[in-house]
Amino acid sequence: MFIRNCWYVAAWDTEVPQDAMLARTLLNEPVLLYRDTQGRAVALENRCCHRAAPLHLGRKEGDCVRCMYHGLKFDPTGACVEIPGQDKIPPKTCVKSYPVAERNRLIWVWMGDPAKANPDDIVDYHWHDSPQWRMKPGYIHYKANYKLIVDNLLDFTHLAWVHPTTLGTDSAAGLKPEIERNTDGNGTLTISRWYINDEMPNLHKKVASFEGKVDRWQIYKWSPPALLRMDAGSAPTGTGAPEGTRVPQALQFRHTSIQTPETESTSHYWFCQARNFELENEQMTQAIFDSVVEAFEEDRTMIEAQQKIIDLVPDRPMLPIAADSGLNQARWLIDRLIKAESAQGDA
Amino acid sequence: MFIRNCWYVAAWDTEVPQDAMLARTLLNEPVLLYRDTQGRAVALENRCCHRAAPLHLGRKEGDCVRCMYHGLKFDPTGACVEIPGQDKIPPKTCVKSYPVAERNRLIWVWMGDPAKANPDDIVDYHWHDSPQWRMKPGYIHYKANYKLIVDNLLDFTHLAWVHPTTLGTDSAAGLKPEIERNTDGNGTLTISRWYINDEMPNLHKKVASFEGKVDRWQIYKWSPPALLRMDAGSAPTGTGAPEGTRVPQALQFRHTSIQTPETESTSHYWFCQARNFELENEQMTQAIFDSVVEAFEEDRTMIEAQQKIIDLVPDRPMLPIAADSGLNQARWLIDRLIKAESAQGDA
Amino acid sequence: MFIRNCWYVAAWDTEVPQDAMLARTLLNEPVLLYRDTQGRAVALENRCCHRAAPLHLGRKEGDCVRCMYHGLKFDPTGACVEIPGQDKIPPKTCVKSYPVAERNRLIWVWMGDPAKANPDDIVDYHWHDSPQWRMKPGYIHYKANYKLIVDNLLDFTHLAWVHPTTLGTDSAAGLKPEIERNTDGNGTLTISRWYINDEMPNLHKKVASFEGKVDRWQIYKWSPPALLRMDAGSAPTGTGAPEGTRVPQALQFRHTSIQTPETESTSHYWFCQARNFELENEQMTQAIFDSVVEAFEEDRTMIEAQQKIIDLVPDRPMLPIAADSGLNQARWLIDRLIKAESAQGDA
Repeated sequence: MFIRNCWYVAAWDTEVPQDAMLARTLLNEPVLLYRDTQGRAVALENRCCHRAAPLHLGRKEGDCVRCMYHGLKFDPTGACVEIPGQDKIPPKTCVKSYPVAERNRLIWVWMGDPAKANPDDIVDYHWHDSPQWRMKPGYIHYKANYKLIVDNLLDFTHLAWVHPTTLGTDSAAGLKPEIERNTDGNGTLTISRWYINDEMPNLHKKVASFEGKVDRWQIYKWSPPALLRMDAGSAPTGTGAPEGTRVPQALQFRHTSIQTPETESTSHYWFCQARNFELENEQMTQAIFDSVVEAFEEDRTMIEAQQKIIDLVPDRPMLPIAADSGLNQARWLIDRLIKAESAQGDA
Repeated sequence: MFIRNCWYVAAWDTEVPQDAMLARTLLNEPVLLYRDTQGRAVALENRCCHRAAPLHLGRKEGDCVRCMYHGLKFDPTGACVEIPGQDKIPPKTCVKSYPVAERNRLIWVWMGDPAKANPDDIVDYHWHDSPQWRMKPGYIHYKANYKLIVDNLLDFTHLAWVHPTTLGTDSAAGLKPEIERNTDGNGTLTISRWYINDEMPNLHKKVASFEGKVDRWQIYKWSPPALLRMDAGSAPTGTGAPEGTRVPQALQFRHTSIQTPETESTSHYWFCQARNFELENEQMTQAIFDSVVEAFEEDRTMIEAQQKIIDLVPDRPMLPIAADSGLNQARWLIDRLIKAESAQGDA
Repeated sequence: MFIRNCWYVAAWDTEVPQDAMLARTLLNEPVLLYRDTQGRAVALENRCCHRAAPLHLGRKEGDCVRCMYHGLKFDPTGACVEIPGQDKIPPKTCVKSYPVAERNRLIWVWMGDPAKANPDDIVDYHWHDSPQWRMKPGYIHYKANYKLIVDNLLDFTHLAWVHPTTLGTDSAAGLKPEIERNTDGNGTLTISRWYINDEMPNLHKKVASFEGKVDRWQIYKWSPPALLRMDAGSAPTGTGAPEGTRVPQALQFRHTSIQTPETESTSHYWFCQARNFELENEQMTQAIFDSVVEAFEEDRTMIEAQQKIIDLVPDRPMLPIAADSGLNQARWLIDRLIKAESAQGDA
């Protein structure tokens, strides 16, 4: 069972070029993504109402898509506007149309009650398209339920074990994160860790324009269904970073990790790591991308193996430890929304 | 659920050579096909009654087949005639034997009540072995329920969309077929289209011994479970083709498309396209075969994709349009037979 | 459903080297095998109690294994001895530990009630590690339920059909084996065949230090769940082999065939063929191994095909013949143990 009344990412903007169509399963539903003549993203059910042929084998015609099995043509609202060999089009001849919004280079779709869709609720990822930031977009397909990925992202202890040579640091092991929970709306968790007067990690040393001790931070904001935004960086120690000042030479990163369920046992995963320095250094863009991919493959190996063990006895309980605080709160927020939708008959 | 009391095609004659055995699943049942010493086709359940070993791993011995696990030997009636190390053979030591008939180069088996099997009910495909006709036999395996293939064959509208460069023609788009239904016995549909004083399609132009306008026809006869016979061709216009005269220079084709369910979600498909001219032109035989295969692969891509979409929510209804008239009548005939068998306890 | 209160083979000793860990599914349960600092085999549930990560992706640390997802560390009893970032370890933070014993180069695990595990119950396979014998250990993975393999091993009639050129002999066909059933404890079947004043089979001729007629024997001892020990050989005729005397020039073999269910439809299979002559002849060791593998592949082809036919209608009954006497008694012993455990609530 999935949360339905929320915005889900369906694709990076570049995954839906003007001249092609993208078929993607979201929450077990076949979805077709394409752009109308104005370039606006359209999301329709990828199943012709006539005989269930997938529309992605069809043809874009202006703002519309034509099913290439028997020629039915649908407009971006999902209404059928042509049935070859038939003059009258019954009103129920239509496919489901999903509310869509394009924000910060992501195409968002609303999988629930369209009357409740408000694009203002979409969380901000401005570092995807701001001129102050630079990133390379990434996508991974996962053979695991999306909540296992959420667990992973909201847990700091695994850095030392899964990523000893990539993301892990010695000082990371002992430090407890601070967790704030905001339960307004869909809810948001803020998980922060500060390392005051600490060494720069190797990655920072390589790209920094200064030397010496730093105040470092990792500030995660997580919102259901599976939206992570991270603010991370290093500033020369004592320049006021913990109080909110970011001096110009401070190294700043913004990280994106977003999951959308494909099925109960598979997931889509979009990510990027943006920076606010050396924006034109394409080699640096690629090097940062590559190191994120390397670490994320370490996670995927573990999480897909974990899913296989869970599949043996799916309802067997897990056993909580103290470090689960962040992920438990995320699970609680997800469950709360599913229960609320279920009570309202939306689920 | 399948119709059982009818003749199903199990193989082309050449698929069961004298010296080999063929294992084929039909209607979810494992069937063994081989030839006795007289060359007559035999169809037995491909499952030894002793411990379920498949007989196709066994050995032909005269008219019999021996299971090569423990040596039980069965005659063409399915009776066990030898149990190694045991003198007495209990009468229930036998495998199911299916009524078989070989007609027009096809091996037909009866999957239902043997008492009701009458080879005279087998429909005629004389162009497979008549000296007036020439064809090359074809077989395709489908990852889709056979009824989706029947739908496709009885629908003319898809020609324009699925086969724009192979089978489709401009004049095909608008023309409504005439459908006659004969509900005697298993029922037969006759679907006819005539194009009077029309251009020849390219395929006909290439092989015709005359030039100029033609009267063209496509006359389908379809019978349950999934037997299609098509009469198609072009005659010089005004020579009486619509009234039944076929002048010697008329181009005539006979087409065969036959499906047998393998499982609920996979099918066997036998086909050919016979002609009554240039019989010795082997290059033409191959060229016609290749163009049919090309068009049939276009269908297979669409139908297997359609099956995948259906599998997501198998019982979701389809939405009829006017062009479905032919296929709806075929589905009605199939359902009527299944219900009748169910009422008689044969299903 | 499986017998649980018995010793199952989990691996040859060499499959669990000192420096590595082995993940193996036994009776549908994920099991981790490794060696402690003393070289003693340890078998733990291969599922961290925290969040179900598999421990085989973890790290051996002394006698313990550390889960490399969040760092929990377990000792050989399955008790958690470290939770990173947490001082107190609740007693239920543990994974299941299986009783283990290493005997005759095999690692045995007890999958049932640990209180009932007694290593003295493990059957003897001394030819695996005795200086009087020489063998090469083998392993096969089977896509079939283990009981189909047991059936095969306790049946002599298939030798003539499945192995006509490998294990089968002409004199084997008619001879009825003698079957003794001992129902004490888990039960044991002894199946014997003697060929008095017979020819040596080709395999024996090749390696024998004498010529002429022989008294030959095949004496199987089978115990549940799926443990076969065979004593086979040839002695110069009249030297008292049937009465128990084995003269020095007698060719003696000991054969091992052991199955452990992996799942309901897949199995592990360990085997070897030991001899008591030319112990240092490594070429002979390999040749004997190769000929066993060749014959066992003939069995696997048949049994995996048999499993596929059974899967079509899993509960369809088989039809017994006289030759099934041995395998029927084995099945009866297995069923008796499962029923007894079920009655005691151990299953």
